[in-house]
Amino acid sequence: MGLVVQKYGGSSVADAEGIKRVAKRIVEAKKNGNQVVVVVSAMGDTTDELIDLAEQVSPMPAGREFDMLLTAGERISMALLAMAIKNLGHEAQSFTGSQAGVITDSVHNKARIIDVTPGRIRTALDEGNIAIVAGFQGVSADKKDITTLGRGGSDTTAVALAAALDAEVCEIYTDVDGVFTADPRVVKKARKIDWISFEDMLELAASGSKVLLHRCVEYARRYNIPIHVRSSFSGLQGTWVSSEPIGDKKVEQAIISGVAHDTSEAKITVVGVPDKPGEAASIFRAIADAQINIDMVVQNVSAAATGLTDISFTLPKSEGRKAIDALEKSRGGIGFDSLRYDDQIGKISLVGAGMKTNPGVTAAFFEALSDAGVNIELISTSEIRISVVTRKDDVPEAVRAVHSAFGLDSDTDEAVVYGGTGR
Amino acid sequence: MGLVVQKYGGSSVADAEGIKRVAKRIVEAKKNGNQVVVVVSAMGDTTDELIDLAEQVSPMPAGREFDMLLTAGERISMALLAMAIKNLGHEAQSFTGSQAGVITDSVHNKARIIDVTPGRIRTALDEGNIAIVAGFQGVSADKKDITTLGRGGSDTTAVALAAALDAEVCEIYTDVDGVFTADPRVVKKARKIDWISFEDMLELAASGSKVLLHRCVEYARRYNIPIHVRSSFSGLQGTWVSSEPIGDKKVEQAIISGVAHDTSEAKITVVGVPDKPGEAASIFRAIADAQINIDMVVQNVSAAATGLTDISFTLPKSEGRKAIDALEKSRGGIGFDSLRYDDQIGKISLVGAGMKTNPGVTAAFFEALSDAGVNIELISTSEIRISVVTRKDDVPEAVRAVHSAFGLDSDTDEAVVYGGTGR
Repeated sequence: MGLVVQKYGGSSVADAEGIKRVAKRIVEAKKNGNQVVVVVSAMGDTTDELIDLAEQVSPMPAGREFDMLLTAGERISMALLAMAIKNLGHEAQSFTGSQAGVITDSVHNKARIIDVTPGRIRTALDEGNIAIVAGFQGVSADKKDITTLGRGGSDTTAVALAAALDAEVCEIYTDVDGVFTADPRVVKKARKIDWISFEDMLELAASGSKVLLHRCVEYARRYNIPIHVRSSFSGLQGTWVSSEPIGDKKVEQAIISGVAHDTSEAKITVVGVPDKPGEAASIFRAIADAQINIDMVVQNVSAAATGLTDISFTLPKSEGRKAIDALEKSRGGIGFDSLRYDDQIGKISLVGAGMKTNPGVTAAFFEALSDAGVNIELISTSEIRISVVTRKDDVPEAVRAVHSAFGLDSDTDEAVVYGGTGR
Repeated sequence: MGLVVQKYGGSSVADAEGIKRVAKRIVEAKKNGNQVVVVVSAMGDTTDELIDLAEQVSPMPAGREFDMLLTAGERISMALLAMAIKNLGHEAQSFTGSQAGVITDSVHNKARIIDVTPGRIRTALDEGNIAIVAGFQGVSADKKDITTLGRGGSDTTAVALAAALDAEVCEIYTDVDGVFTADPRVVKKARKIDWISFEDMLELAASGSKVLLHRCVEYARRYNIPIHVRSSFSGLQGTWVSSEPIGDKKVEQAIISGVAHDTSEAKITVVGVPDKPGEAASIFRAIADAQINIDMVVQNVSAAATGLTDISFTLPKSEGRKAIDALEKSRGGIGFDSLRYDDQIGKISLVGAGMKTNPGVTAAFFEALSDAGVNIELISTSEIRISVVTRKDDVPEAVRAVHSAFGLDSDTDEAVVYGGTGR
C-alpha cells in the first residue's frame, strides 16, 4: 500500500461545494489502496479577510498574534474537509500544524520548517484514517508558539510531510492543469509540461513562474520527493517534477523547459560610484543589513576619464523604498552621485538543462528578442538559464516571440483549463 | 497587586470597533495595578456561520471535527484583541485553551473541565503581559484532541482560570447591566440586583435566567470565586455573585432574589399507569437510558376505582421527540394507556433564601397568580425556590404579577441598558 500526500489550495476549497468535490477526490485516492495525507489551505479569501480585520484593529499587528489569527483559516477548512470525507463514509481526522509535528524556527510570518515529527499522523493512518493537515503553519521549537510559513507555505508543508512520511508522491492540486512552457495568460499556445527536472523547475520558480514556489521545490529536491502538480477541477494528468522521469513511459528531456517572466521587480541604479575595490561590497552590505533580497546585479564598464562607474541591481518592488532609504543612509560611506529607481521593468527568462550542451541557445534567444524589437537592458545567466531585463511593456510580446522561436508553441490555440478563481 | 479575570462575550467583540473598545477597558484594569487575564468568545455571529458551513458539508458533523472547526472562532477574536491591546502600548499574548492548560474530558461538543494547569499564563503575566485566553475550548486529557465546552462555555473557562490562578474576582462582561429581579424584556420595572448569593443565583439559572449558566455558577461556588456580572458597554457596577457580600458596604440579603421564567420546556403526561411499585422507576429508567434530562415530575393521586394513575414531567422541548420515542419503545414493559405531549407550557419560579424563614411566601405566590387569573398546572419546590407550570401565554402576566406582589418593582420604568445585539 502506497502513501500519498495531496495538497489543495484555497481556490479548490473556496466554498462548501468545493470542499465536497475535493472530498470525493480524496476518497478516490483512498479507494485506490493508498494511505492518504491531505494538506489544505484556508478557504478562498479567508486569509485576506483576516488580514483586513487585523489592519482594522492595529496598523502594525504583532507577528505572534498575526500568526495566531491567520492559522484560524486552515483550521476551518481542514475541519470541514474532514467532516465532508466522513460524510462519504470514510474515516478522517484533522490536525493542526502543531499536532502534525511541523516544528519551525521562531520567525513569525515566515518561519522555516526545521523538523517534522508526524507521530500522530502515522497513528491516524495506521488506524485507517485519512489525515487532514493544516497547511502553512507550525509550532516554534523553543517557545511552542504558533507560526506561519509565509507565502506558498502550504506547498512546503505538503512536501515536508511527504518527506517525513516517506511518501511515494506529493500531489499539489491547484486551479491550473500543471506547469506550462509559459504563462498561458500571456502565451495562448503555451503547452503543459509532462515532466520537468527539479533543477529546471527551480530556475522557472526563481524566474517568475508562480505554480510552485522555489522553497517547496528545493525541499522536494533535497529529499527526492516527486511532485505531481495537477488541477483539482479537471482530473487530468498534470506535470511531474522529479529527479528522473517517473513510470514506464520515457519522457525525453527537452532542451528548453520554458519561458518565465516576472514584472514584480524594480531596478535601482547607483550612479557615479568610484571605480575602486570595496565599493560594490559597501553597497550590497548596506542592502543586506536592511534584510533585502536582491536578484540580478550588473556593473557597467568604468568610463576611464572619470574613474566612476554605475552599478544596477533588481529587487522586489515591495522592497524598493527600504533599499533607497538604506543606500541614502550609507551615502557618506559609499560615496556615489545619485540613485535612480525604475519600476517599469520586466524580466524574461529562458530555462532548460539543454543549454549546457547547446551553445546556440543564447544567440537564438537574443535574436528572437531583436526580431521582436525588444531592447535588452540587463543580462544575467546561470548554467541552465538566461534572463534579460526589458521595458515592462515589452514583456508579453517578448515572451511570445521567445516561446515561438524555441518551438514551444502547441498546435492548439488554448491549452489551459482554468477552473478556479485564480491563485 | 491583584489578579483579575475578565470575560467578554461575542456581542462585546462583534466587530473591530467592539474589539478596540474592549481593549481600552482591559488596559484600564491593567493600569489600575492588576494582573489581567481575559477570556474571550468568538466574534458576534462567527460561531453560527461556522455551524452553517458545517451543515453544508455534512448533515451530522463528527464531534471531534466540529470542535476543531468551532474553536477557530475564538482564535480569531483573541488574536485580534491581543493586537488591539498591543496597539495601545501594552504587552499582550493570546493563548488557545490548550496552551492555557484547560484540560477536559473527551466528550466533544460538551466537554467538562477536569483540570487547569495555567503555567504559560502565569509566566506571561509575570513577564508583564496581559494574557488573552480563548473561551469555550480545551484539550482532552487522553487523546490531546481539541474539545469545546458547550453552551456558556466561555463563562466556565473564565471561572475555572480564576480559580486556578487564585484571582480576586471573575468579571463577566456582557450586553446587560447585570442580573435582574426578572427578565427586563418582560418586566419593565425589573431591578438590577447588587449582590446575590451563589445559592440563589444557582436557582435562578436553573429556573430560566440566562445571564449566567448553572454550570459556571456551580464552579464559582465550589472554588469560592466572586463573580461580577456587568456591561461592557456602560461601565456601571453590575451584580456581584459570591458567598458573602463583598467590600465595605453591607448589602442586606433580600427575602426574594427574583422571579425567573422559562418557556423552553414541554410537558409529557403518561396516562393510565398501573398504580403499583416500580412503574415510575420503569418510566424514568427508559428516559434516562435515552440520555434525556428531565426537570419537574408530578404524579397525581390514583383513582381508586381504576387502579391507574397519571405521571407528568417536564423536559427541554428539543428532547421531546426522543423522549416520546423512548417511552413508546418501552410501552410493553411499562404498561400505560397513552402519552400526551404539550409544548404550550411555561414555568415561573420565585427564588430567595428568605423563603426558608418566611412561611408566608408560598401562599403569597399562589395568591398573586390567582389574582392575575393564572391557572397552576404543576408545582415543585426546593428549600429556596417555588416553581409552577402554567399555560405559556400566561407567563408574561404571571411574572409581572409575582414581581409586583413581592415588592420587587423599581421606581423607574426602564431599568435596563441594552448596548449589544443580543447574546
